Amino acid sequence: MNINPNIKKEWNQSHQIKSVNYYFNGIIAQDRYILSEAISLVENKISRFNSVTIELLDRCYNVTSNSWRIGITGSPGVGKSTFIEKMGMYIIEKQSKRIAVLAIDPSSAKTKGSILGDKTRMPILSANNNSFIRPSPSENYLGGVNSATKEAICLCEAAGFDVIIIETVGVGQSETMVADLVDMSALLLLPGAGDEIQGIKRGIVEMADILIVNKSDGERVTLSKQIQKNYQNAIHLFQPKDHGKMVNVLRCSSLEGTGIDRIWNEIEQFFNTINSGFLEENRATQDKKWFDANVLFALERMILKKTHFQNKLELYRDKIKKKELSPYEANALFTQSIFNNLE
Amino acid sequence: MNINPNIKKEWNQSHQIKSVNYYFNGIIAQDRYILSEAISLVENKISRFNSVTIELLDRCYNVTSNSWRIGITGSPGVGKSTFIEKMGMYIIEKQSKRIAVLAIDPSSAKTKGSILGDKTRMPILSANNNSFIRPSPSENYLGGVNSATKEAICLCEAAGFDVIIIETVGVGQSETMVADLVDMSALLLLPGAGDEIQGIKRGIVEMADILIVNKSDGERVTLSKQIQKNYQNAIHLFQPKDHGKMVNVLRCSSLEGTGIDRIWNEIEQFFNTINSGFLEENRATQDKKWFDANVLFALERMILKKTHFQNKLELYRDKIKKKELSPYEANALFTQSIFNNLE
Repeated sequence: MNINPNIKKEWNQSHQIKSVNYYFNGIIAQDRYILSEAISLVENKISRFNSVTIELLDRCYNVTSNSWRIGITGSPGVGKSTFIEKMGMYIIEKQSKRIAVLAIDPSSAKTKGSILGDKTRMPILSANNNSFIRPSPSENYLGGVNSATKEAICLCEAAGFDVIIIETVGVGQSETMVADLVDMSALLLLPGAGDEIQGIKRGIVEMADILIVNKSDGERVTLSKQIQKNYQNAIHLFQPKDHGKMVNVLRCSSLEGTGIDRIWNEIEQFFNTINSGFLEENRATQDKKWFDANVLFALERMILKKTHFQNKLELYRDKIKKKELSPYEANALFTQSIFNNLE
Repeated sequence: MNINPNIKKEWNQSHQIKSVNYYFNGIIAQDRYILSEAISLVENKISRFNSVTIELLDRCYNVTSNSWRIGITGSPGVGKSTFIEKMGMYIIEKQSKRIAVLAIDPSSAKTKGSILGDKTRMPILSANNNSFIRPSPSENYLGGVNSATKEAICLCEAAGFDVIIIETVGVGQSETMVADLVDMSALLLLPGAGDEIQGIKRGIVEMADILIVNKSDGERVTLSKQIQKNYQNAIHLFQPKDHGKMVNVLRCSSLEGTGIDRIWNEIEQFFNTINSGFLEENRATQDKKWFDANVLFALERMILKKTHFQNKLELYRDKIKKKELSPYEANALFTQSIFNNLE
């Protein structure tokens, strides 16, 4: 790596970043505290592009892993936490696998608050030594392939987690975001609520590789079966998936713990029967997408490190504020001035 | 403007952009067809930063306008179209004002389809000479302050529209986006559905300057009144707004046309009683935000105009695909190479 030494010094000073070996050895030793520290490093806007972070990611990227990356989406109230808790414990106890849960948290722009809360959502799973649960703040920069969730996955895989769950609220753009991070997506549905009320758009259903009707218990069983049938019929109308695996609709009760084993079988079947090469190709495409989105972001940070660009930017901001320039002309003038300085 | 003449030539050739005067004079003459053409110009990724587009925006920006920019948000099914149709006709007929409706359309990433449909959603309003209705595709680049909706507002204001409605589906990040575009936001609510089912998060309610319980008709009136009361109580717990105007909860029936005049009074009251200077300051902040977000985007386009950067980008994409480089290292190397070429 050929990072400008002055920038490196500045970053290190302000953030007290530890050595690459500290983070890497801790992660390899499956130390969950150090894993957490490393994730904080990639989540921070400043330390994100530090040379230590990049070298760490690069080394973790090259650690062999056979992980499965699974997205879990669904409207608020559909029971994602309870489902992941039950599924997670099943994976640990019955499949002897280690599981990491990264929850993408579309924070309220105004309150900066979290709608997902903390580990209390999954008390049993979070207390287990073979799990790792962490909210992944979504700052929604750079259209979808955002934030540090991809990097967090990379670090969790190096830490030996076999199953990586990416959880997100199924509203807005977050599903597209998840699709750029995982190998397969599960969509949780509620018996009884119409699609529109659940805020589920056609595109979201189409994106799922498995549909799960949750809360299929008590007096909701009959209705659940009906919903299952409806979706199974609807799905036949969709285009076949690139991976070649048929989408199925399953039912479960996270409360009673029924149907969880059947869903795990379906997940196993997905990874065992999809077209050869799909997984690798899909992940390479995702990597390329991450690169395209982040190049821009890293570039901005670098350009603003140049004092004279920073000053010029401030000047234009001021002119906009004073209405001396329209934002449109200011934009053209500023970018042109950078362009003129490029070899 | 000092746009590189070669780039200008290239853009003009490929897109057959007409003269600034053609667009500007057409807009000033309130020609809706030319207004549409101009909006297409700002929506296109290539022509967006053409010198003609920038000069046009700059000239339109300087046309005096006393417009009111109003955001209308609400979950799918809450009746936004019917409400805007009724409200729009009221504004035209009773207030003798001209109204433009820009609908931000969170297209499905997979199907590229529109969930909002076209003018058939508002048949009466769209047939009226004093209205202009146009979907504004949301490509969700650059975290929120996206797409060309801001520019479309600028053009509509130069075309003499008094009220600009920005409509969006109330799921995900689109409300934040709208807040960066409008002077005041209205949130439509449905009687009977719980907050969670409606996908309405606390942050979204907090962002609204007026809450409207729609479909308050027939047997839903009693329930509507209850919901109105609940929200009115809840709102007292929120922080006071910067603009100083208290948030009120109103009821209406878009179907029966009742309550529309009361809502318009509330909107008028908003613009007449808010703290002096708020409107101007808020818009200046929005302009600055647009600039900050778009600088980056314009910059990317310019950098990729340099053939050797384009080639280098392709090279890195290829290395990622072949797993010769992690996306993290590729990003660092590529941005560093640009940085090294900057004065």
